[in-house]
Amino acid sequence: MGARDILRDWGVEEFRVIDKQALAEITLGASILATGGGGDPEIGLLWAYNVVEQGHEILLIDPEAMPDDALATIAGCLGAALVLTEKPPNGQELFWCYDALRRYMGQSIQAVIPPEAGGVNTPVPMAVAGAVGVPVIDADGMGRAFPELQMTSFYTHGVSPSPTAAADEKGHVTICDASDALITERIIRNAAMAYGGISWIAGYPMTGRQIKDSAILHSISMAWDLGKSIFNAREKHLDPLSEALKLTGGFRAFQGKIIDIDREFGAEKTKGFSLGRITMEGTDDFKDHVATIGFQNEWLTIEIDGDVRCMPPDLICILDPATGEPIRTDIVRYGYRGAVLLIPAHERMRTDRGIATFGPRYFGYAHDYVPVEELMEKRG
Amino acid sequence: MGARDILRDWGVEEFRVIDKQALAEITLGASILATGGGGDPEIGLLWAYNVVEQGHEILLIDPEAMPDDALATIAGCLGAALVLTEKPPNGQELFWCYDALRRYMGQSIQAVIPPEAGGVNTPVPMAVAGAVGVPVIDADGMGRAFPELQMTSFYTHGVSPSPTAAADEKGHVTICDASDALITERIIRNAAMAYGGISWIAGYPMTGRQIKDSAILHSISMAWDLGKSIFNAREKHLDPLSEALKLTGGFRAFQGKIIDIDREFGAEKTKGFSLGRITMEGTDDFKDHVATIGFQNEWLTIEIDGDVRCMPPDLICILDPATGEPIRTDIVRYGYRGAVLLIPAHERMRTDRGIATFGPRYFGYAHDYVPVEELMEKRG
Repeated sequence: MGARDILRDWGVEEFRVIDKQALAEITLGASILATGGGGDPEIGLLWAYNVVEQGHEILLIDPEAMPDDALATIAGCLGAALVLTEKPPNGQELFWCYDALRRYMGQSIQAVIPPEAGGVNTPVPMAVAGAVGVPVIDADGMGRAFPELQMTSFYTHGVSPSPTAAADEKGHVTICDASDALITERIIRNAAMAYGGISWIAGYPMTGRQIKDSAILHSISMAWDLGKSIFNAREKHLDPLSEALKLTGGFRAFQGKIIDIDREFGAEKTKGFSLGRITMEGTDDFKDHVATIGFQNEWLTIEIDGDVRCMPPDLICILDPATGEPIRTDIVRYGYRGAVLLIPAHERMRTDRGIATFGPRYFGYAHDYVPVEELMEKRG
Repeated sequence: MGARDILRDWGVEEFRVIDKQALAEITLGASILATGGGGDPEIGLLWAYNVVEQGHEILLIDPEAMPDDALATIAGCLGAALVLTEKPPNGQELFWCYDALRRYMGQSIQAVIPPEAGGVNTPVPMAVAGAVGVPVIDADGMGRAFPELQMTSFYTHGVSPSPTAAADEKGHVTICDASDALITERIIRNAAMAYGGISWIAGYPMTGRQIKDSAILHSISMAWDLGKSIFNAREKHLDPLSEALKLTGGFRAFQGKIIDIDREFGAEKTKGFSLGRITMEGTDDFKDHVATIGFQNEWLTIEIDGDVRCMPPDLICILDPATGEPIRTDIVRYGYRGAVLLIPAHERMRTDRGIATFGPRYFGYAHDYVPVEELMEKRG
């Protein structure tokens, strides 16, 4: 039984076949929306290319087409992206997770939904869907990337991450089934640390109905359009940032050179996250201005000349001004040049429960959430 | 289907019915063999009494009677005994663990084996066996208590703790299935800490054959005899320590008053263990001598006048000289009087892999293991 059989069972006739070109476009777009996190897109892309080259089909469907009672889970990785680059997966981890979940739940999983937009967590769930023969849903749980398991629109709209299974490349598997999502996050993150910094996870089992009510719908299409526009800009020598701004409704907030990186180290302190802050010195239109940007796997807040201009869950994307390639927190270096785009988060990420779960105060910042549109208007 | 049906299926005609008197005797003996750890016996006893009062039968069988292919698991608790006293179980935790394991493994569990000798982890598995209707095996994995999951004769004779399930009183469940026992220990201990310091666990699934080849056989009978002898000594005003020595082949190594307790605090430092060291000033035959005893949940090493006299896995038991009641690491207080008994560990605990797994160097002491018999002979 493959993905086409499942779609036939569901009576779904419309779907898009994701080929290698599409994977490259979607992954580039998702890497930009990952706001500096989401890990090395090479890893996710190679995995997905491999699945396509083996003759598997990756079929993307509209979330509205999924039956209300069909079951999907997320698939992806959790941990410090910095470690991922040095500890690549063997490709079996997510099958082990699926097998463990299937046995534990006594139910089979009929679709995959990406947890977030990211260089790894967008193409990898597509690869997994292709390899196990189920469709992938055009949606995710953030429309961006965030560091913790409970930081999803799924959770803030009432879906539990439990049970979640976490595996490593040696076949070690942990399942956590807890009504308290913060306990699940803690146990699954501890498992990632016990595994050496990274774990591969499947979880958030949810029905089609729950996806329609809680997910960031059509976010894969959004990443795809964004990736296409950047490739197009490169080819036609257009300004990639202007193209990105048109699609996302964002703001061009800063441009400059990275003159300082203050990175924290040690598992005790960082709890497995990439943690720190960078300083950028303005160039071009932003000469004589300074930006400081804090990160925890993702870029989280930006201050320009001491004024806060964006807070989570709104998106801070730093792109190479020439190529539109995103600059990530795990590989950022002194001297890199970047253009900063600020993008309003999806409305489903801006509910009261959303702000409590992944707003500025949750991350330890002493500010109440103000939407990026208002913060940028104040600039005058 | 109850325990008697299982025994009939197995063709086992000999078993002992464990009543409340037997539970009290076994639990007292197990608390002594727990070497200062194993937690508050009140908690385990009340749980087991309750099961008997509800009309369940607890049937104890010889390990040799168990069929080679029948499946048993341990049941008990893992974490800091200090927390257990303040966070009593609701009685459902281990059923949730069993249910999770059964679903994950797709096999039913036909017997329970206690993980260790302890005030909690001896009566509680007996209670669980009674409540779920399976026999309990007259054996355990240590013949004493130890703090970590892999510190068993099961593990040092080739049995994996995986899969192990851990639950708390809110119904949170974690399953770890890892070929590396140290990863299982780490993940299950982290779960205990995420749960608030204690978790209830079922795991180490093993066959009758594996139990016969790896367990400390007839250790429940040993605890039972020891408990009976102490009750008998109290009733007849005999010296409880002399009675204990006769049964265990141990040494009366010290008697004195506790004059200092150096306890470490904070989860970061203690990792969920009761950790520290006590100093005893000699009395009676041991006047003008000093003993220092280190502990990590259990009493681990003793120095008398600066000379090491016992190392793990050999047993250090500190008893109230008048009543034979054990003094535990989680409740020891300044001014308590104690008699120190040293007991050679079971031969199955003294293999090379055993010494590597729970010998003095594993616990950070700068000594190679020397059996307590040799250390006490040197005393001259």
